[in-house]
Amino acid sequence: MKRVLLINGPNLNLLGTREPGIYGSETLEDIVVDLRSFAQERDVDLSDFQSNSEGEIVTAIHGARTTADGLVINPGAYTHYSIAIRDAIAGVDLPVIETHLSNVHAREPFRKESVLAPVCLGVVAGFGRDSYFVALEAMIRHLDG
Amino acid sequence: MKRVLLINGPNLNLLGTREPGIYGSETLEDIVVDLRSFAQERDVDLSDFQSNSEGEIVTAIHGARTTADGLVINPGAYTHYSIAIRDAIAGVDLPVIETHLSNVHAREPFRKESVLAPVCLGVVAGFGRDSYFVALEAMIRHLDG
Amino acid sequence: MKRVLLINGPNLNLLGTREPGIYGSETLEDIVVDLRSFAQERDVDLSDFQSNSEGEIVTAIHGARTTADGLVINPGAYTHYSIAIRDAIAGVDLPVIETHLSNVHAREPFRKESVLAPVCLGVVAGFGRDSYFVALEAMIRHLDG
Amino acid sequence: MKRVLLINGPNLNLLGTREPGIYGSETLEDIVVDLRSFAQERDVDLSDFQSNSEGEIVTAIHGARTTADGLVINPGAYTHYSIAIRDAIAGVDLPVIETHLSNVHAREPFRKESVLAPVCLGVVAGFGRDSYFVALEAMIRHLDG
Amino acid sequence: MKRVLLINGPNLNLLGTREPGIYGSETLEDIVVDLRSFAQERDVDLSDFQSNSEGEIVTAIHGARTTADGLVINPGAYTHYSIAIRDAIAGVDLPVIETHLSNVHAREPFRKESVLAPVCLGVVAGFGRDSYFVALEAMIRHLDG
Amino acid sequence: MKRVLLINGPNLNLLGTREPGIYGSETLEDIVVDLRSFAQERDVDLSDFQSNSEGEIVTAIHGARTTADGLVINPGAYTHYSIAIRDAIAGVDLPVIETHLSNVHAREPFRKESVLAPVCLGVVAGFGRDSYFVALEAMIRHLDG
Amino acid sequence: MKRVLLINGPNLNLLGTREPGIYGSETLEDIVVDLRSFAQERDVDLSDFQSNSEGEIVTAIHGARTTADGLVINPGAYTHYSIAIRDAIAGVDLPVIETHLSNVHAREPFRKESVLAPVCLGVVAGFGRDSYFVALEAMIRHLDG
Amino acid sequence: MKRVLLINGPNLNLLGTREPGIYGSETLEDIVVDLRSFAQERDVDLSDFQSNSEGEIVTAIHGARTTADGLVINPGAYTHYSIAIRDAIAGVDLPVIETHLSNVHAREPFRKESVLAPVCLGVVAGFGRDSYFVALEAMIRHLDG
Amino acid sequence: MKRVLLINGPNLNLLGTREPGIYGSETLEDIVVDLRSFAQERDVDLSDFQSNSEGEIVTAIHGARTTADGLVINPGAYTHYSIAIRDAIAGVDLPVIETHLSNVHAREPFRKESVLAPVCLGVVAGFGRDSYFVALEAMIRHLDG
Amino acid sequence: MKRVLLINGPNLNLLGTREPGIYGSETLEDIVVDLRSFAQERDVDLSDFQSNSEGEIVTAIHGARTTADGLVINPGAYTHYSIAIRDAIAGVDLPVIETHLSNVHAREPFRKESVLAPVCLGVVAGFGRDSYFVALEAMIRHLDG
Amino acid sequence: MKRVLLINGPNLNLLGTREPGIYGSETLEDIVVDLRSFAQERDVDLSDFQSNSEGEIVTAIHGARTTADGLVINPGAYTHYSIAIRDAIAGVDLPVIETHLSNVHAREPFRKESVLAPVCLGVVAGFGRDSYFVALEAMIRHLDG
Amino acid sequence: MKRVLLINGPNLNLLGTREPGIYGSETLEDIVVDLRSFAQERDVDLSDFQSNSEGEIVTAIHGARTTADGLVINPGAYTHYSIAIRDAIAGVDLPVIETHLSNVHAREPFRKESVLAPVCLGVVAGFGRDSYFVALEAMIRHLDG
Repeated sequence: MKRVLLINGPNLNLLGTREPGIYGSETLEDIVVDLRSFAQERDVDLSDFQSNSEGEIVTAIHGARTTADGLVINPGAYTHYSIAIRDAIAGVDLPVIETHLSNVHAREPFRKESVLAPVCLGVVAGFGRDSYFVALEAMIRHLDG
Repeated sequence: MKRVLLINGPNLNLLGTREPGIYGSETLEDIVVDLRSFAQERDVDLSDFQSNSEGEIVTAIHGARTTADGLVINPGAYTHYSIAIRDAIAGVDLPVIETHLSNVHAREPFRKESVLAPVCLGVVAGFGRDSYFVALEAMIRHLDG
Repeated sequence: MKRVLLINGPNLNLLGTREPGIYGSETLEDIVVDLRSFAQERDVDLSDFQSNSEGEIVTAIHGARTTADGLVINPGAYTHYSIAIRDAIAGVDLPVIETHLSNVHAREPFRKESVLAPVCLGVVAGFGRDSYFVALEAMIRHLDG
Repeated sequence: MKRVLLINGPNLNLLGTREPGIYGSETLEDIVVDLRSFAQERDVDLSDFQSNSEGEIVTAIHGARTTADGLVINPGAYTHYSIAIRDAIAGVDLPVIETHLSNVHAREPFRKESVLAPVCLGVVAGFGRDSYFVALEAMIRHLDG
Repeated sequence: MKRVLLINGPNLNLLGTREPGIYGSETLEDIVVDLRSFAQERDVDLSDFQSNSEGEIVTAIHGARTTADGLVINPGAYTHYSIAIRDAIAGVDLPVIETHLSNVHAREPFRKESVLAPVCLGVVAGFGRDSYFVALEAMIRHLDG
Repeated sequence: MKRVLLINGPNLNLLGTREPGIYGSETLEDIVVDLRSFAQERDVDLSDFQSNSEGEIVTAIHGARTTADGLVINPGAYTHYSIAIRDAIAGVDLPVIETHLSNVHAREPFRKESVLAPVCLGVVAGFGRDSYFVALEAMIRHLDG
Repeated sequence: MKRVLLINGPNLNLLGTREPGIYGSETLEDIVVDLRSFAQERDVDLSDFQSNSEGEIVTAIHGARTTADGLVINPGAYTHYSIAIRDAIAGVDLPVIETHLSNVHAREPFRKESVLAPVCLGVVAGFGRDSYFVALEAMIRHLDG
Repeated sequence: MKRVLLINGPNLNLLGTREPGIYGSETLEDIVVDLRSFAQERDVDLSDFQSNSEGEIVTAIHGARTTADGLVINPGAYTHYSIAIRDAIAGVDLPVIETHLSNVHAREPFRKESVLAPVCLGVVAGFGRDSYFVALEAMIRHLDG
Repeated sequence: MKRVLLINGPNLNLLGTREPGIYGSETLEDIVVDLRSFAQERDVDLSDFQSNSEGEIVTAIHGARTTADGLVINPGAYTHYSIAIRDAIAGVDLPVIETHLSNVHAREPFRKESVLAPVCLGVVAGFGRDSYFVALEAMIRHLDG
Repeated sequence: MKRVLLINGPNLNLLGTREPGIYGSETLEDIVVDLRSFAQERDVDLSDFQSNSEGEIVTAIHGARTTADGLVINPGAYTHYSIAIRDAIAGVDLPVIETHLSNVHAREPFRKESVLAPVCLGVVAGFGRDSYFVALEAMIRHLDG
Repeated sequence: MKRVLLINGPNLNLLGTREPGIYGSETLEDIVVDLRSFAQERDVDLSDFQSNSEGEIVTAIHGARTTADGLVINPGAYTHYSIAIRDAIAGVDLPVIETHLSNVHAREPFRKESVLAPVCLGVVAGFGRDSYFVALEAMIRHLDG
Repeated sequence: MKRVLLINGPNLNLLGTREPGIYGSETLEDIVVDLRSFAQERDVDLSDFQSNSEGEIVTAIHGARTTADGLVINPGAYTHYSIAIRDAIAGVDLPVIETHLSNVHAREPFRKESVLAPVCLGVVAGFGRDSYFVALEAMIRHLDG
């Protein structure tokens, strides 16, 4: 059974309350529950982790080396400047998919820049809660490939 | 039955022969055949169009207003400078998903800039042939949403 | 009798359907009919050409060397990057007026840059359908000057 | 009867003496006389104001709120840096057309930037003395629209 | 008794009429009357000056050397480019506080740059009419410090 | 009774020892004691929080949604790059005032850029310990407004 | 016998009529006739293609995979922005030489940038009609090397 | 007898009081008196004009067309942004020398840029009060040349 | 006996496992053991601290004020953006040496920028595990100087 | 008999030993011997000069005014910054061709910029040792033209 | 008796032959002879040095520490990039005046940047041969001051 | 016995006299004497070379191919722009360490950029005369490694 770790970065714990016009009103927990079912149907074991702290996310990525076969990460704001997370991704030997709820290209100019994407396998962005399901789909296909 | 149009831009007709180290050795036709099956299983009618000409792609997008419910587009090199295609996407009232075979963020710096993404629904990139399937999955979820 | 060629670039064939909030709901054909009457009243023969293709616009400009005394061009998105059209304008010995329906300065930053304007006689922008009439008025004054 | 105020910025009082290769040899007064006739024929009352002082131009724009229905302004050098004039234009509830004698895009690079254009209705540039007539024509069409 | 001079730059005379969505509907005079009472309660003599002219503001700052103990200035648009006003502030031996009604950081990018702030004591921005009271409060604390 | 939370970012715990030439020799605790008295006189309940950790500041801002009516934040170095804190501020429905002890505009160029200011109510900077009192004054006026 | 394809981009069909001060008065056809003789003397079969359309040039490059041993291309204006042509060159397994009639470095700044040169074998520019002969010479030497 | 007009821009009326560490403690009037003697010894009639207003300086330059044979101008802060003064200099047919008391290159980066120098005869900067004498010497040599 | 604190930033705990092609296969602990011996031979007491968290590193630097005479820091990715760590270094009165295992100048462009180096005593980079020994040598020489 | 001077700049004396993967293993002398034969066959007298010193190259170019009819120069690294060599080329009345062994456009970004090319007749680059022969061919054609 | 050293940089030995449209037809020697007379009349001993080599100019500046009281330098092209000469000027304890024959601000953009001016006393540019006399005048005034 | 060559670039011959506030008062010779002893103790033969000339430094690096096992270079100002020296370093097959007396990151912005560091083994900067000893230590460790 394949193991996938889902990491959610800063402010995603606010999901459902923060700027619902952009992010929708469902909580992160709601989504993860559905996502876990979706994973199980495909014989994948999904664990998840959320933190507002850059350092804790770095440490969680390190930990995944022995506990996961792939990472799906929504790095939130750290997407745009956390070279520490970039180095963590490059430093573990795992496929990583960057995902975003919103279409980052359609917002403030600074959200176009991802310092993480160059060391990820790929990117999925803009489909709201569906982004997680689509990214997980891509990871499963990759692990099966 | 939902109708999705897949548009492939310049040089994608070379798929299978061009830089296989980056793009794999399968032809575009091979992929489209599989993709059409995948679509049919989900009760979606997939048509496709490939052109090396910016103007023809603009015109094809116009045409989709009456013949499709959503567009999946791999704009190739036009991703990075075709404001004409951007205006075409913005001018038709359809959800559009931009997709790429390779992880454009891990290549030359100029491939990071997409002039199209800000007017698209979302982006899927980096999964090789899987990008098409994942992007189509995202479109179907969106149309069903 | 003076001859003026009106060239319309990519997506202008969508006029009346595309983003009516910005461009109005009249079709290009509607405007051209009125414009032709306006021209005739001033003893000017107006022909027109629309294409989504950069190459065809280049070729149309070449053709105007022998069939027109002046060009009015709404280059649409090509305004911002088509050095090919710039070279075509510089290469024919005709006065050319660049015109836009919308005030390009009040939109996305990339629309401020015109690679064509430096080789044109002048620019008229921002007056909706009136832009064509005002630009034609300017051309007639120039040809009469 | 519609009232239009024409504002001319710094150095335009030199017209006819300054760099005639670029600006022609007619004085500003000569042009305004003709322009006033042109306006009257169209049942428009044209007043005019020239100043080399940024502050006086700001004040003149304020004054126009109660004395004019539209503004045509050739801001001269202030086009490129006067945010004070920009704020004045944005602060009065009047349509404003920016106009220039020369094709500013064909001169020094810094003349391409207009800090005023984004808050104006539109722009007319490059037709010498005709620019004023064409800009007035555009204003009349707008007021009549 | 401490003396503070309040200087208001271009377009602030429009207050109450200009873009009330951003600046409110109270006139500058209304605010100054209240501000003067507020000052008197704190045993401070407040005088004020408004001009649309950069040169007059420079001269007013010079004058303050002998007639004021501190300056509160809302430089309006000149904030962003008037090195002349910057040099005037640096040239008089007085504490100067820059203030703005609106949050300049939340508007057009060019409003982020203040050429004056580096030679001022400090900055207060974003509180509407309260900005003046808060800035005056800061000046009184400074003069008392 | 209104509740205001004061957040101090990295290195502000060094206050009184760090670069006293720029920041003075009083400790943060000294200032907060005075500030609390000042608040109480105005019938405001002031709580405070200091952390060197970006993630903890994000979490503290989230917590304020239910425990405060307004935030005064001196984000220290995070002012200049923490999009995570920016998103936290934008994600809670509270007025936030950014404040600084020193005049950030008079120091290194990178201190001019605030990624937080665009999502704050306003900014107060440059008045040493007075900055806190003036910012609190501004918040009280806002909450009373 | 070696086969070389010469591709000429937009506006080169105007040769002999367009800006003769820069490009000379000979037509493209005149040059190609001479060039073909020059090739034959060296036992090389030269074919040629001219188009104003970016898409057609892309397609022509694709076609050369089976019909030519080397490409000499004067991409005209597309030199400066056609990533589509760049991808076509990189996608075919052929040596390509970029050539220009004029010294592109001595003209407008934007002509200094070639997006094609990095994927070409080399560049020859500035020798008028001789550029074609010198570039062909370089290709023959390369194919013989 | 040659006539030279000396124009001093904003804040130079503060000379002797403003930042004496940079500019010395002599007043502008003191210097002009000496400069006039220096001029008379060389049979040159020196007049002078000082203003803090950009518009008045523009007007003074216009006036010099009929009353002076050459201009020496210390434009102060306007050096760095007054395209209006630049246009005035370019618009009168007189040799103009730009001069500065301080070495503008050794101060803030923005003082390196002169928008006026490209349309002046030459520049003299950095010699304190001597700058005026040296610039006048250069003008006399030029007028005599 | 001199006391030196060695701080290692994010991802350095991965040493020996992360990208061994760049960083070698020895663990951080292995190196620290050797380094401690090296220090003891020179009569220096070496303590060490590793964290992936920016805030914890800031706090560790604060703590060093009373427990160390000098700091050697390998800030990892935080080198490039942590102004918080920069402020911590500037805020403690200790000599600090920045060190890196790899030659940061020979990698991605963003690794060239150190926001910390301007407030450090000096920099040692590029010698793999030797960097620590050489940096410690430099610190001992400095403390002895 | 035409006389051509070949100048080789810094590090070209290392040819055959330096980075043979890029530059090949033949020495400069080997190439010059062949090149001299090639020249003689065309009735051209070829002399050559190599120096690592910018100043000596400047002086050699000056000397060519009386001893050569044309210059072929491989300026090596000086291509990218030696305005002194640029001025020397512009200062002698001779046709100059810039040439490079490698395709400078396919290497580090800073090698794309040539400060010399704008004052040269043309450029030949990317053909290894053939570059010299092709450049000489171009010079002979030019001198014969 | 004061001693002044005049240093002339690269290509100034061509004076009288190089681009006479910009630099005039007199040789450097002609000018130096006149300049020496001018110096002697003022009781100043003028020596001079010309070199095309950056290193020799650096060495000459070093030598001036014991043999001159002031330096006048026309650094030619090295003005724009020789940090080595800048360091030499900063390293000797002598007043240095930078001078240019032409108005560098009216030529190519790269000639606007002087890396030397920030460490010089002042700058004199644009007066042809008179620049040397005016710069020497400024130096004598400075040494006398 | 290992052989190391120490190269010192422009102005380092001034050491002990030039800007002693930054560089100390010891001469280069003094340091080299000590450094040679230090080397001998470690069984290393140290030779040294100083030049103000870029070309001579290039030539010295070439020479080191056969006479040294490693290079320590303090390139002085050439650090920031000498691509010729960069190419020389890349062209010889030797480990090279770049070193600086001062902390280049704490000085003018242009001193942050090293065009040499990317082709060096590593960098040591900021320790005054100790920089040489520490860099030599690093080289010995490397040669021993």
